[in-house]
Amino acid sequence: MSLIVHKYGGTSMGSIERIKNVAARVAKWYEAGHQLVVVPSAMSGETNRLIGLAKELMPQPDPRELDVIAATGEQVSVGLLAMALKARGIKAKSYCGWQVPIMSDDAFTKARITSIDDKKIRKDLDDGYVVIVAGFQGVTDDGQITTLGRGGSDTSAVAVAAALKAEECLIYTDVDGVYTTDPRVVPEARRLTKITFEEMLEMASLGSKVLQIRSVEFAGKYRVKTRVLSSLTDPHMPLSDEAISGTLITFEEDEQMEQAVVSGIAFSRDEAKITLVGVPDKPGIAYQILGPIADANIDVDVIIQNTSTNGFTDFSFTVSRNEYAKAMDVIAGVKSRLNAKEVTGDTKVAKVSIVGIGMKSHVGVASTMFRSLSEEGINIQMISTSEIKTSVVIEDKYMELAVRALHKAFELEQG
Amino acid sequence: MSLIVHKYGGTSMGSIERIKNVAARVAKWYEAGHQLVVVPSAMSGETNRLIGLAKELMPQPDPRELDVIAATGEQVSVGLLAMALKARGIKAKSYCGWQVPIMSDDAFTKARITSIDDKKIRKDLDDGYVVIVAGFQGVTDDGQITTLGRGGSDTSAVAVAAALKAEECLIYTDVDGVYTTDPRVVPEARRLTKITFEEMLEMASLGSKVLQIRSVEFAGKYRVKTRVLSSLTDPHMPLSDEAISGTLITFEEDEQMEQAVVSGIAFSRDEAKITLVGVPDKPGIAYQILGPIADANIDVDVIIQNTSTNGFTDFSFTVSRNEYAKAMDVIAGVKSRLNAKEVTGDTKVAKVSIVGIGMKSHVGVASTMFRSLSEEGINIQMISTSEIKTSVVIEDKYMELAVRALHKAFELEQG
Repeated sequence: MSLIVHKYGGTSMGSIERIKNVAARVAKWYEAGHQLVVVPSAMSGETNRLIGLAKELMPQPDPRELDVIAATGEQVSVGLLAMALKARGIKAKSYCGWQVPIMSDDAFTKARITSIDDKKIRKDLDDGYVVIVAGFQGVTDDGQITTLGRGGSDTSAVAVAAALKAEECLIYTDVDGVYTTDPRVVPEARRLTKITFEEMLEMASLGSKVLQIRSVEFAGKYRVKTRVLSSLTDPHMPLSDEAISGTLITFEEDEQMEQAVVSGIAFSRDEAKITLVGVPDKPGIAYQILGPIADANIDVDVIIQNTSTNGFTDFSFTVSRNEYAKAMDVIAGVKSRLNAKEVTGDTKVAKVSIVGIGMKSHVGVASTMFRSLSEEGINIQMISTSEIKTSVVIEDKYMELAVRALHKAFELEQG
Repeated sequence: MSLIVHKYGGTSMGSIERIKNVAARVAKWYEAGHQLVVVPSAMSGETNRLIGLAKELMPQPDPRELDVIAATGEQVSVGLLAMALKARGIKAKSYCGWQVPIMSDDAFTKARITSIDDKKIRKDLDDGYVVIVAGFQGVTDDGQITTLGRGGSDTSAVAVAAALKAEECLIYTDVDGVYTTDPRVVPEARRLTKITFEEMLEMASLGSKVLQIRSVEFAGKYRVKTRVLSSLTDPHMPLSDEAISGTLITFEEDEQMEQAVVSGIAFSRDEAKITLVGVPDKPGIAYQILGPIADANIDVDVIIQNTSTNGFTDFSFTVSRNEYAKAMDVIAGVKSRLNAKEVTGDTKVAKVSIVGIGMKSHVGVASTMFRSLSEEGINIQMISTSEIKTSVVIEDKYMELAVRALHKAFELEQG
């Protein structure tokens, strides 16, 4: 008997029929003797409907009140799922975030979980209940409702699994796992049966939308064995098959994994590049440029400072494309203060990254990447590296070509 | 500066435009210097939509989980109304039942309020906030969500007004007050400017749907000055006019009121009559008949026991028409146990009642009623009286005729 956490996304909870399927799947695990905690999202479309109502009243909705409204989507889901289980004759009980409680800070609409009290859940599990916990929501020390931001239910599930020291956290979603890259770009893309936590973190942060990045961070911090798998399969498929399906996020670098130097290719078109040309190369220059950007609450991604020539340097960085205009405004002020020669901007860029835990111990990975792009005639504008990934910024029209070339160069279709 | 509680029903909260109107009305009171607590219902249709989802999963939904789901309707309303006020530049803060907290027993779907903690609300009022409290919902000692049953938001509002010792509780609804009888039956029906609590209690219990009866009981118990008024008027109408509109439920029997012997005519077609003919007239007979009915959770209304003849009597009572079949089943068993001669039933009956605090001190009111019905050729089947009402059960096809005749006989159209 193991304690297992299941998480179901909005699509899986999208209709009464689908909720019945979720209940059938949960029942299968429960009847096999496992203790089950289930974390559902709001029914698909519901969160957007609620936010839409709010925006009709306030184009920039008040964050505290928006969370009061948005949290109801998951509250309805937990009640419905508990009923679907009871209709099957299974003992089930629902909890909202504040009832567990799942404590969070008070950063409304993007709160962070600070602690989870496991007492009530444990007692119910010991009493034979399937426990349904609302995803996406928490409560502050002074009893205010918060939500965790888009995709927050993933984080709720992993955090609950961590608090309960669950055997495994199963994230049921509308894809059947994590792929070497997006199959819509590379039809030969292959599902990974395992991926390390570090690689998953890079894949998530680089635009692979399978899991919310904070849930991956949580999984890493508390070493929660997490599996991404499909909720679209037959709920009655043999449990032994289901339990090994999807992609497992692991913490051990076993032999098989060391052989895979590169595990996947991530990419993002949501990039814009800004360059300050001819800045005096003095200590503190990076802070003088990026400080005002951070103050404007703009996230910076790749940062490059060229070698100094005659005491002057060029300084480039990338931001999200939808923050480009705001960033350019800020940089206009920086330019005059620093007496820089020129500001240039480019919104037609994309970022392509190779990710792999094996890169730590293998030389020549980056050079294979650069050679492969060069053979396709793709110019590299910026390069950024970490222990387990190498990213390049290129002209965005070459993005798919680059991804396909790299997928082939690293033989990812072969597994 | 007074502390005022407003309550708005589902129709008043039925769309974003209407919520803006509610905010405009609340703003008018707030800007006149009052402290405001507002209790909204769910947007019209929302509670039924949620219950409908639940019933797709369980024809008899689990009560605990149904309350988790149903409570979200009011939660959305408080968030939206707080935003509508903030959009007008007014400080506002929402509370769910559990946040106040509004404590209740654990009779899910029909819970009763046990206590209300006023500390948070008072602090917010002192800090200049309009406080929005979700109607219809409470929380048990062990933190489970409850709802108060249909119309429960009226009770929430009156209970909050009682806890805060508010100057007045204004129930905004889609009618403009309490009438001498239903204007759809008697076009000359007149709006009462005042009605005593006892009369309102009878009117509410006798089928006048303006206020939930438990809210009236609450108003009486804590002597909450409660006014029923329209939410369909122009929200910008002068506050001085609005403050005296509708119908005030009072606790003083002032001079003007003593003159009105009968204040209103209530009626209900939701009646069925059951008679046990030829029961032995022994002590405890009423209990032996009505005990099993109560055990079956069936409410009995009018009860009549005829004078005994040769040691036998006839025993009649009325029940809700939709519980008639169930009651007849129970009575079949009683008949054989008591060895009664016969059971007769009639679902074609209606109840018509005259209500008035003045009846206490005026003789001849009942006889005026009986004469008036007799003049119309209406046969009275059962009579039941209390200090401030007289009810008759008649054949239901005569109901409207009886109501019109009585309205005229007591000159209610003249005020």
